[in-house]
Amino acid sequence: MSPSEQLSRLNLVLPTVATPVGSYLPAVRSGRQIITSGQLPFSEGKVVCVGKVPGDVSIEEAAKGARIAALNGLAAAAYVAGGLDNITRVIRLGVFVNSSPGFAEQPKVANGASDLLAEIFGDQGRHARAAVGVAELPLGAAVELELTVEAADDAPPDRPM
Amino acid sequence: MSPSEQLSRLNLVLPTVATPVGSYLPAVRSGRQIITSGQLPFSEGKVVCVGKVPGDVSIEEAAKGARIAALNGLAAAAYVAGGLDNITRVIRLGVFVNSSPGFAEQPKVANGASDLLAEIFGDQGRHARAAVGVAELPLGAAVELELTVEAADDAPPDRPM
Amino acid sequence: MSPSEQLSRLNLVLPTVATPVGSYLPAVRSGRQIITSGQLPFSEGKVVCVGKVPGDVSIEEAAKGARIAALNGLAAAAYVAGGLDNITRVIRLGVFVNSSPGFAEQPKVANGASDLLAEIFGDQGRHARAAVGVAELPLGAAVELELTVEAADDAPPDRPM
Repeated sequence: MSPSEQLSRLNLVLPTVATPVGSYLPAVRSGRQIITSGQLPFSEGKVVCVGKVPGDVSIEEAAKGARIAALNGLAAAAYVAGGLDNITRVIRLGVFVNSSPGFAEQPKVANGASDLLAEIFGDQGRHARAAVGVAELPLGAAVELELTVEAADDAPPDRPM
Repeated sequence: MSPSEQLSRLNLVLPTVATPVGSYLPAVRSGRQIITSGQLPFSEGKVVCVGKVPGDVSIEEAAKGARIAALNGLAAAAYVAGGLDNITRVIRLGVFVNSSPGFAEQPKVANGASDLLAEIFGDQGRHARAAVGVAELPLGAAVELELTVEAADDAPPDRPM
Repeated sequence: MSPSEQLSRLNLVLPTVATPVGSYLPAVRSGRQIITSGQLPFSEGKVVCVGKVPGDVSIEEAAKGARIAALNGLAAAAYVAGGLDNITRVIRLGVFVNSSPGFAEQPKVANGASDLLAEIFGDQGRHARAAVGVAELPLGAAVELELTVEAADDAPPDRPM
């Protein structure tokens, strides 16, 4: 099955990529690599997973937030690639977890994103990953992630945002 | 206008790139990508923006610090590219903000760097960006950033530092 | 001397790369770049450098931890490259230091990793580097790092993990 078929099988749809308001873009292509901006667990226009893990947000909820953020990252990357099926593999996932003092299980939060990528892309979804605990995140989000993927050689050129 | 002409129009000059003292370099080229080391708001040999945001340093001052750090990053990248006009586009900006407890407006600090890149490179200056809040930064700096740009195909080979 | 000869001269051996347990990989190749997952100071199956710097772990001990993590990163990259001598240069080192309040000497910790890379690869080991202080790290590690290297053009294709 193609990535878009896997997405349908999971009853997921790629969210609309918000028009950027500043001097940056949701994602940029460099050669075959597509690098996304930092992704938050935005859903229907608001951050759905706010606070420190696990003080304010459980590990399980934060992992769900990471999954939502990963879906947003895929939407941004797919926009640049000209479609989800023009993404040939996932390269890197950087995960920043808004951590309560003493919290040392950032990988469990990151798994929410990693598992989604594997569900959609199979072996091509397995990636290099770095997960760290940070002091604060934009809008108080519990998790932020950065995604790097590869586009097919014959993917169309970037569309303007 | 070329990037160097835009720089002049802004009454800016690229600072001298400091000779590295350790086992690392101000910037390294990999294919067409040039990746800089972490850039601090250094000006005339010292960090000009020290402390946590916004407890010690206002958001506005930190954004100015991010702008200074971005200019330093461009200087490092331009050195490797053989000149600012051999940089064809900006790819990625990673922004680490030394954050007071509860601070969640890291993007406003990052805008200081993003806006400079857009002023100098126009649409080619728009980049993927991740901004996070960290606990501490080298020399107590309020902000640190990493820059990835693309060099022209015909840029000369790396100069030794 | 080749990198593997330098490694022998230093009386070091590359550790075995652990079989990944999740949806991610120790390292991934993208074009000529090999990007590793976040590396901790693991030795003989456990993290040997735990706590905040310098409150729990001295700068010197944390630098040794960074050196161990860098060796682990090289092992992961060498696995993907088909051997250490198929790594032609080091591109980037991202260093996250688990920092006590007020600690601002993250570069001294990072030097433990940077110096090892220079000892093994000489001038080709000098890299772009960003070091920041974070609030928490997986398993309470004192330091985590991400490594990007370049593989030789004629390096064999990725081996499955």
